[in-house]
Amino acid sequence: MSILGVDIGGTEVKFAVVDSNGVVGSFSSVKFDRNSKKLIDSLKTKTAGLKFSGIGIAVAGDVDAEKGTVRFSPNLKWKNVNLKKMFGDAFRMPVSVENDATAAAYGAYILDLKKKCRNAVCITLGTGVGGGIIINGNIYRGATGSAGEIGHLCYEPNGIKCSCGNSGCFERYIGRDGIISIARRKIKSRPTMIPGLAGGNNDKITPETITAAARQGDRVAKEIWDEAGAILGVLLTDIVDLLNPEYIVLTGGISKAGDFLLKPAVRELKKRAFEVPSQKVKVIISKHQNQLGVAGAALLSIKK
Amino acid sequence: MSILGVDIGGTEVKFAVVDSNGVVGSFSSVKFDRNSKKLIDSLKTKTAGLKFSGIGIAVAGDVDAEKGTVRFSPNLKWKNVNLKKMFGDAFRMPVSVENDATAAAYGAYILDLKKKCRNAVCITLGTGVGGGIIINGNIYRGATGSAGEIGHLCYEPNGIKCSCGNSGCFERYIGRDGIISIARRKIKSRPTMIPGLAGGNNDKITPETITAAARQGDRVAKEIWDEAGAILGVLLTDIVDLLNPEYIVLTGGISKAGDFLLKPAVRELKKRAFEVPSQKVKVIISKHQNQLGVAGAALLSIKK
Repeated sequence: MSILGVDIGGTEVKFAVVDSNGVVGSFSSVKFDRNSKKLIDSLKTKTAGLKFSGIGIAVAGDVDAEKGTVRFSPNLKWKNVNLKKMFGDAFRMPVSVENDATAAAYGAYILDLKKKCRNAVCITLGTGVGGGIIINGNIYRGATGSAGEIGHLCYEPNGIKCSCGNSGCFERYIGRDGIISIARRKIKSRPTMIPGLAGGNNDKITPETITAAARQGDRVAKEIWDEAGAILGVLLTDIVDLLNPEYIVLTGGISKAGDFLLKPAVRELKKRAFEVPSQKVKVIISKHQNQLGVAGAALLSIKK
Repeated sequence: MSILGVDIGGTEVKFAVVDSNGVVGSFSSVKFDRNSKKLIDSLKTKTAGLKFSGIGIAVAGDVDAEKGTVRFSPNLKWKNVNLKKMFGDAFRMPVSVENDATAAAYGAYILDLKKKCRNAVCITLGTGVGGGIIINGNIYRGATGSAGEIGHLCYEPNGIKCSCGNSGCFERYIGRDGIISIARRKIKSRPTMIPGLAGGNNDKITPETITAAARQGDRVAKEIWDEAGAILGVLLTDIVDLLNPEYIVLTGGISKAGDFLLKPAVRELKKRAFEVPSQKVKVIISKHQNQLGVAGAALLSIKK
């Protein structure tokens, strides 16, 4: 059985044919178009030669998985878009819709973990910080399908105001903007190659610039990742003490910092968390970054 | 089928006969004795007239439920005590052993919630702050049986050092000592009846004293519960955003403050948490406080 996995993000829309073993083929993408009809047309043209019998969609935003609707996506500027109906009408086959972090978590469970554990958590570190929880080999959705808002656990109860309504959410500190804020503060105090790598324009500093500097041995860059990693370690501790998972998989643009981020995060985790569960858990960075959304959305669709 | 539920705490050991419907009969208790042999002897004498065919034990501490061993209990000053073997030898029947917060959570699921939901969280607010997670109608244990350490989620990453190794755990702020600290600070600034109710000795202020004062309209007492409730609300938000449960049940001595604690906690939750899951969740105080441990331990034993 082959399913078309589609991962709709604010810049590009990735797609691929995925079989029931999770093998991903014909990976490609089209540009995102806010006009959902045009977006579907362009996907139809691009996938004309591919063979599949259903569609699984991952989408950034608050999704009603049962109805197949995007209730609200600030990223895509969509509100109440019924993707299940629109894709169903266009392709004439079964369609299922998932939140992108949920799909990525299931993708990581199959592609990275190969189902070799029962309980795992996936954290997507990007502009936002999202997540998905695997319990007993299944996505855990909670009472209204809202479970897994890992980035909105509280780091500083009186901290930076968050768009979700809470204050001091982890997303504000270790999401893309949070890390750039750490960098802007740190580069003031000591010489570093970061501004140079950003073309002399501090507004153009990105997590990628910081990692590039760290790779060349820049100490300030390493300290930025140390600070971000220590905050991530507090989040990992919350997850380990509460959910005691066998694996935590990190994915998303920020996780591409690799060991610069992972090492201080795990150090903080070992320092803070209960001994038995913190010795048990393995924290890894996904090796299938780009494919997790399409694979997870397709595989969850097959499961249904 | 009737099972003897036994709830071992540092002061008293409660016991009762529990049937498979969760009906609790012959509820009674003996004094705790650190000498486990003597404790079992006294339980044997006291239960001589009761009919039961198995024993389910709830115990404060780190429990290896599979082996039936208390790995470590700072409260009881026990280390590696194999209760399963000792009770089994004495009573000649099957014995199972659970952490007390885990047992209480399952007890609350049956007695308070009557299994009318799938996903729930129980928070035990006492000297320590513990918890248990119900997922799909079962206790969720995690990879090493350590899941549910709700009191050790982080409230202030650089806050009060905790015995668990972490800093700033919620337990330090809304456990018994945390609440007494809030009271000691608040009573300095304004007139209040709390010191009088504590016999003029500020070292004897307890959560019960504060509640007694609040019931008589003492404003400082109410403000103490407002402050504690707001902190509890941050914890509730973490749980709702991450696990999206249908119910959260509060139990333990601190929860006897009732609405003085519950109202500000829910107010903070509504302010901070995601809208859909925070509208869905019902936060209640258990109506079966004392019985949750014995009932849950017995019912989990029947389930096995």
